[in-house]
Amino acid sequence: MSTTPTNTGDTSYSRTPRTTPTRYKDRATWEKEAIHAILDEAYVCHLGFVADGAPVVLPTVFARVGSRLYVHGSTGSRPMRGASDEQGMQVCVTVTHVDALVLTKSAFNHSVNFRSVVAHGTAYQVTDPEELDVALAALVDQVVPGRSGGIRPANPKELAATAVIRLELDEVSAKTRSDGANDDPEDADLPHWSGIVPVTTVHGTPEPYDRNIPLPAHMRRFPR
Amino acid sequence: MSTTPTNTGDTSYSRTPRTTPTRYKDRATWEKEAIHAILDEAYVCHLGFVADGAPVVLPTVFARVGSRLYVHGSTGSRPMRGASDEQGMQVCVTVTHVDALVLTKSAFNHSVNFRSVVAHGTAYQVTDPEELDVALAALVDQVVPGRSGGIRPANPKELAATAVIRLELDEVSAKTRSDGANDDPEDADLPHWSGIVPVTTVHGTPEPYDRNIPLPAHMRRFPR
Repeated sequence: MSTTPTNTGDTSYSRTPRTTPTRYKDRATWEKEAIHAILDEAYVCHLGFVADGAPVVLPTVFARVGSRLYVHGSTGSRPMRGASDEQGMQVCVTVTHVDALVLTKSAFNHSVNFRSVVAHGTAYQVTDPEELDVALAALVDQVVPGRSGGIRPANPKELAATAVIRLELDEVSAKTRSDGANDDPEDADLPHWSGIVPVTTVHGTPEPYDRNIPLPAHMRRFPR
Repeated sequence: MSTTPTNTGDTSYSRTPRTTPTRYKDRATWEKEAIHAILDEAYVCHLGFVADGAPVVLPTVFARVGSRLYVHGSTGSRPMRGASDEQGMQVCVTVTHVDALVLTKSAFNHSVNFRSVVAHGTAYQVTDPEELDVALAALVDQVVPGRSGGIRPANPKELAATAVIRLELDEVSAKTRSDGANDDPEDADLPHWSGIVPVTTVHGTPEPYDRNIPLPAHMRRFPR
């Protein structure tokens, strides 16, 4: 399978065989704006890599900076070690939002409304100190925008214990389903209930460790 | 690396090198009850497999039946084709719940409260018609318990288009963090806000396609 990118212009990522679905092609997009929006609403990804020939999928926090994804971890962790040499490490980074259960009259048409991004490529360890600073701030700001300005940055000992890997977004696509419960016409008269159940991720009221410290501006996005 | 299971008794899955974390060992468990509870609260997993030597991670619906996980897909999809021969396909199935943002005074101690399960093994295509029936019902019931009894089951044409793969739970562990914002003692007097933000997944009010069909008992778990 060739994975040489086919340039599709500045507003889209390149389409390759492995980012082109074989089914539900209308659910796929390579548009940067759509892909970035799905990524930016998330802070947890599922990082896939190959260890001893077998797949490993681990949940971990990530950040997007422009067309780069960053993932961090302990310097001793498997993915960080795997990406630390010049060859880097082949990864797949997947981000998924579930938006609704789609419950139809037939078992077969049941589905889930979702938005997902799948990014393929080779991850490399970040060694440039400036890029490391940017990445570490972004990893905090991906969770709560603006938070990196209101905390103590990493000290040299903490920096030495932390590794960051970079995946350049290049071979990446998004897939979404946002439709209703589509029953087959021949199922229309069945007595079974069909419809959707919306699913949302809710961030609750911040619970402070010390109630004497006022809630900073960057925390006011959460309900009070 | 040896992956021969070490039997740790009936209430636990066997511990192997790749299900034994190198860090935060106290966050890991191999107890069946804990692992099953995390799986049963979910219906979307991230399925990892290797294609042309590279990792692929796709979100997909799953079901647990006893100590087996089932994932389904179109007969033509990559993971279904990959698991269709006698050798099966090496997979990693990961399920993650995010429970809270953990926001500390230092960037380094930031964390996420979560519960995750990572299952390694070889997946095989289900060919036995009885097992297939059980698996397809479970895939619907994992999303809404009891729903498989209130819908039209798959007809022969739909069955022919659907493949199901089975992963025997064996090399599997859970990892959880459920602690507060643990600042370093030397950070205690810093003026920065620290604390947690609870995160929940909320299922909303069912939106029927046809309002004349009453809500069945299995749908009454959702708010009205």
